[in-house]
Amino acid sequence: MPADALKCKECQTAYPLEARFVCERCFGPLEVSYSLPEGDPAALKRRIQAGPHTIWRYADFLPLQGPARSALPTGWTPLVKADRLAERLGLGELYIKNETANPTHSFKDRVVSVALARALELGFDTLACASTGNLANAVAAHAAAAGLPAYVLIPFDLEEPKILATGAYGAQIVAVRGNYDDVNRLCTEVSGERPNWAFVNINMRPYYAEGSKTLAFETVEQLGWELPDRIVGPIASGSQFTKIARGFQEFIDAGLVSGEVPKMNGAQAEGCSPVAKAFAEGHDVVRPVKPDTIAKSLAIGNPADGPYAIELARRTGGGIDAVTDDEIRAGVRLLAETTGIFTESAGGVTIATLAKLAARGDIGPDERVVAMVTGDGLKTIDVVRGTFEVTEIPASIDAFDSHFAPVAV
Amino acid sequence: MPADALKCKECQTAYPLEARFVCERCFGPLEVSYSLPEGDPAALKRRIQAGPHTIWRYADFLPLQGPARSALPTGWTPLVKADRLAERLGLGELYIKNETANPTHSFKDRVVSVALARALELGFDTLACASTGNLANAVAAHAAAAGLPAYVLIPFDLEEPKILATGAYGAQIVAVRGNYDDVNRLCTEVSGERPNWAFVNINMRPYYAEGSKTLAFETVEQLGWELPDRIVGPIASGSQFTKIARGFQEFIDAGLVSGEVPKMNGAQAEGCSPVAKAFAEGHDVVRPVKPDTIAKSLAIGNPADGPYAIELARRTGGGIDAVTDDEIRAGVRLLAETTGIFTESAGGVTIATLAKLAARGDIGPDERVVAMVTGDGLKTIDVVRGTFEVTEIPASIDAFDSHFAPVAV
Repeated sequence: MPADALKCKECQTAYPLEARFVCERCFGPLEVSYSLPEGDPAALKRRIQAGPHTIWRYADFLPLQGPARSALPTGWTPLVKADRLAERLGLGELYIKNETANPTHSFKDRVVSVALARALELGFDTLACASTGNLANAVAAHAAAAGLPAYVLIPFDLEEPKILATGAYGAQIVAVRGNYDDVNRLCTEVSGERPNWAFVNINMRPYYAEGSKTLAFETVEQLGWELPDRIVGPIASGSQFTKIARGFQEFIDAGLVSGEVPKMNGAQAEGCSPVAKAFAEGHDVVRPVKPDTIAKSLAIGNPADGPYAIELARRTGGGIDAVTDDEIRAGVRLLAETTGIFTESAGGVTIATLAKLAARGDIGPDERVVAMVTGDGLKTIDVVRGTFEVTEIPASIDAFDSHFAPVAV
Repeated sequence: MPADALKCKECQTAYPLEARFVCERCFGPLEVSYSLPEGDPAALKRRIQAGPHTIWRYADFLPLQGPARSALPTGWTPLVKADRLAERLGLGELYIKNETANPTHSFKDRVVSVALARALELGFDTLACASTGNLANAVAAHAAAAGLPAYVLIPFDLEEPKILATGAYGAQIVAVRGNYDDVNRLCTEVSGERPNWAFVNINMRPYYAEGSKTLAFETVEQLGWELPDRIVGPIASGSQFTKIARGFQEFIDAGLVSGEVPKMNGAQAEGCSPVAKAFAEGHDVVRPVKPDTIAKSLAIGNPADGPYAIELARRTGGGIDAVTDDEIRAGVRLLAETTGIFTESAGGVTIATLAKLAARGDIGPDERVVAMVTGDGLKTIDVVRGTFEVTEIPASIDAFDSHFAPVAV
């Protein structure tokens, strides 16, 4: 295993690869540190190519000790060339990384797969999380597939469809009278007194976060072992955004691809845009906000990795933008109409941001751009209500013809 | 192309490979007939294995003239070994063919892909269908991906979520004041006067139906080029059920696998079980019913291929069973809890039927069984309401502990 320690992102203090997530010295966040894979890059590339069509083909870059496996095959989602969308936006080479193809139809399957695999290695026997949606679905599904009990803690006023899509798997759902911050705090407490429970986004967080790197690995491999010029992706906590860049860097460092980390463009909803605001104002620190947006899966008012996301966007020549709820709805529709991919509101944030960058002339005509579409439209179906017309007619050919006149051919 | 004609299933009259679906002589249904692929089976197998990870790897068995392509990668869905479900049911070797992994999360992507590809070869410029759900989603998505206009005709009282998940792609939705039969009749009329419109399940039906064979092809290949002993799958019109068996037969005839067509077990909901009823009563003819079941995607009261499904079940030593709405709900939950796969009500019909066969002792302990799970739970999310408990607590560790006592480890 190339992972050799957990290290504090702030003070670099090293810890063993256990279930810990915060530095005892400076309270900074911990992340997995690796020694570079040894040997010939060509041999490493062949090993990857001979691997399964899941995230586990990148085992050399993931923090597991033994061979990884998971009952729900996750990752290796399509990278779709979106020529009609590119044309509509006046762009050159554009791809959509289509995460709706994952087992529970969002990128959360990646992070949960890695957290679960590491949790089993560390001897945990129960999977848990604090969540308001996609993560709850993924934890419940992967726990069920692995035969582990799952506890999903949610705010008590969560929308019923999200509860139904989680309870179906038999997870124990605990509705907490409070907001998401209250739920998160309770989970941290519970985690402290349940030594056999793996909270994927709390005590397993350093391992969990590594799963997002596979978005970059797959993108490089699916582009024929080349780097894109620019990534447009959503920012909630900022973890996925920064880990995607980390993934590109690790492939460069390992000699699997040459070039530089792509320009990283982050996308937020205006109703929850603390990172975009700090970026626009030139700050390094993110001021928390109270979320109010239809993009609920991105609605983290106090994003833990916000400062790292800002630094990354600046360093790579990218940026961080925010879009309105109306722009989000239009983004969902634009993607569906031009590619046949129906995304949730978070994907609408990404596509609307892509459209904004294109309209502003920020993207060069010869750039190769990849947009990260991280979740499925069936999960936020209310978003498209009122965005199209339905024609009601009686069951007669005359009525049909009067609305849709046949064209001579 | 090995497809050489359309042939009447009743009187064998042959027609050219055009957009026709009914025999002019006897009004029987037409289907594609093939000459067997020539040459060495080993070479054919290598050609398949070198193909894309989509249904198009089986181009030798599909009715297209040129190389097929589709913007939405369809098929090659996971065949998941379901050990925990097998154990729960007292079965031996059990697999789930997980069609929720398709682009619009149902098997309809397969049939629409083939219909669309053939429609483009025949020069059609518009895609259309009569539908009440999954087919509408798939037609709208694949048309959008291909840049074709789409017309989707639905009964006017269709549930709103299904309309939203179709309108998102920009399809023209026509709500017809009438029931599904009225919609279907109107579509047949419209099809007659719009020479440039391809109705996937009307004038394209012979090509459309061929798409279901790929379920069998993938199953054989994913089992390491072996046949299963038994298939359990849903029956709506009976087309998919009979085409799966046809797929196995074609692979046997081509020398790609040896053995016999598996025992074919059909699954219906009691609220719409005309085929199961005719089978149980020993009839060859299916008496139409008025559907009343939560399994709406199987609710075809007058199934066109019902007689063929009955003949197939008898000939292979399988059967056709029906399950209640409560059994369907339990089937959805059982699958989710033991495999992490969340299916729609139609999948619940299949799993409940599998459970019934197991309880009855109809399945031998050494049989290799494949259950076809054809659609996604997010599409019929109401089905799981009331099937589990949610525990509501205040945001305190004491409240949590009082409900979920920590266990000493």
